[in-house]
Parts: sequence; C-alpha cells; structure tokens
Amino acid sequence: MMRTEEEKKALIQRLRRVEGQVRGIQKMIEEDRYCVDILVQISAINAGLKRAGFHILEDHTKGCVSSAVEEGDGESAIEELMKVFEQFSKS
Amino acid sequence: MMRTEEEKKALIQRLRRVEGQVRGIQKMIEEDRYCVDILVQISAINAGLKRAGFHILEDHTKGCVSSAVEEGDGESAIEELMKVFEQFSKS
Amino acid sequence: MMRTEEEKKALIQRLRRVEGQVRGIQKMIEEDRYCVDILVQISAINAGLKRAGFHILEDHTKGCVSSAVEEGDGESAIEELMKVFEQFSKS
Amino acid sequence: MMRTEEEKKALIQRLRRVEGQVRGIQKMIEEDRYCVDILVQISAINAGLKRAGFHILEDHTKGCVSSAVEEGDGESAIEELMKVFEQFSKS
Repeated sequence: MMRTEEEKKALIQRLRRVEGQVRGIQKMIEEDRYCVDILVQISAINAGLKRAGFHILEDHTKGCVSSAVEEGDGESAIEELMKVFEQFSKS
Repeated sequence: MMRTEEEKKALIQRLRRVEGQVRGIQKMIEEDRYCVDILVQISAINAGLKRAGFHILEDHTKGCVSSAVEEGDGESAIEELMKVFEQFSKS
Repeated sequence: MMRTEEEKKALIQRLRRVEGQVRGIQKMIEEDRYCVDILVQISAINAGLKRAGFHILEDHTKGCVSSAVEEGDGESAIEELMKVFEQFSKS
Repeated sequence: MMRTEEEKKALIQRLRRVEGQVRGIQKMIEEDRYCVDILVQISAINAGLKRAGFHILEDHTKGCVSSAVEEGDGESAIEELMKVFEQFSKS
C-alpha cells in the first residue's frame, strides 16, 4: 500500500507525539508523580496508538485487501485482516 | 506511593523500550513496510504499555488505596481506582 | 449475506450457550457466590460473544464488503466496516 | 460480600435484559438480518455485561478486598483483584 508523502508525514507526526508522551511518563515516574495521573496518561497513549492503528487498518483494507478481492484472491487477505483485527482489539 | 529507586529504574527501562518501538514504527512507515507488520507492532506496543500500566495499578492499590482503607477513607480511593480501571480497559 | 441453514444453526447454538451462561450468573448472584467467580464467568461470556462477533465480521467482510468492492463501491462498505471494528474493539 | 436483596434484584434484572438481548440476536440471525446490525447489538451486550461486571468489581473491592486489607491480609486479595481485572479488560 503506497501512502502519499503527505499521509506518511501525518502518521509519523502522530507517532512522534506518542513518543514524546512516553518520555513524559518516564519523567512522571522519575518525579514520583501520583499513580492515577500516570495511568490516565498511559490510557491516553494507548487510545492514541489505537487511533493510528485504525487509520492504518482502513488504508490497508481500502488498498491491499480490496486489490486482492478484485483479483479474485480476497479470501486469504480477509483472513489475515481478521487475525490482525482480533490481536489489535485485545491489545 | 514511593517506589524504590530500583523499581523506578525497571519501570523507566520498560518505557524506554516502548519509546524505541514507537520510533521503530515511524521507520516502518517511512520505508512503506507492509501494513499488517506495522499493525502487529502497534498491538505489541499497546500490550507492553498495558503491562506497565497493570504494574503501576497494582502498586497503587497496594500502596495508596490500602493506606486509605486502613485510615477509614477507602470509599473515595476505591471509586477513583474503578474510574481508572474502566478508562484503562477501554483504551 | 445469506448464511446456509447449517451456519445459522451453529451460530444460534453458540448464542444459546451464552444465554444459558447469563442465566447461570443470575443464579450465582441469587446464591451470593464469591464475586471473583462471578467476574470470571462474565469475562468468559464476553469472550464467547466476541468470538461469535468475529465470526460474523469475517462472514460480512467475505460477503457484503467483497461484493461491494467487486462492484466498485468498496469505499463506503469499508468505512462502515471500520466503524463496526472500532465499536467492537471498545466493547 | 453480602448484597442487600435490593442490590441483588437490580443486578439480576440487568442480566435478564442481557439474556433477552442474546435471544434477540438469535432471532436476527434466524431472519438473515444485516450483519452490521447484529454486530452493533453484540457490542451493546458486551458493553452492558462490562458495566454489570464493573459494578460487581466495585462491590468486591469495597467489600472483601477492603476487609482483607483491614485484617492485614490485603496483599493476596489485591493480587487476585488484579488477575480478575486483567482478564476482564481483555475480554
């Protein structure tokens, strides 16, 4: 699935924010901040990562999976999609 | 909740690994890697963050929540704990 | 998406088991059974319902979504699929 | 943890609604209803069961876990709580 340079830049920027948030939590632990505040931050990072993941999942379904369906080879591409979705929804 | 320096070091190391994994995904996107491989990595990071979160959750329950219960003020500490549980399990 | 009578029977049987498990929890509450045992049962029911859901999700993707893609109208079918994915993974 | 008769009645009523919803899905499958509508119903049931579960989790934490903490035996009760919570959040 070839993303445009712009799409790639947007996704990478989103992940840089997540990277910064993870560093932020390290600092909170360093400073013995209240556990509940740290946990709220971890939940926010997880939710942010899931949004990025759903974005990629949609790209993949519209790109690679649809092409496989059009070429008559949708079955295995859909089974792979389901496996990733199951793993993703349990993480 | 005061963690020992050793506990803090272990938690921060775990989060540094997550930080490195997030950078790894940025690279995968840069290199147009297969979407499913990127999604599997995102699931792994989410799972890693959740494990760190459960660890902090247990510390908090054994520390701050238990002290509040012992001082006869458990009700509000437990309600706060439940809110974090719910938010955490939806992320 | 037309399921065969056999597929319908298997799905309905699975859901009848879930129905029985839900009745079982009512009984556990009636009998003041230990909360943790009740919670383990609720988790088992949720997991059972999710498996049935993933099964239906795969049928739908192989059926209706693939047909829409083949007819050149995949975009909206996939966006609908993603919404269900997200809702399902948060429940 | 002894619930009052009123609390028990409210929880059992909530679970009877879930039981009815599960029967409703069997009917939807019988009638070949649209998969997405069925999946939305399954998500609603899962969310309803989770709310009931969090309710029981809070009762348990305020009841049995707090009593164990007050009797100086909080450690094992909290570890049990964490296991149930992890299982619950993955279901």
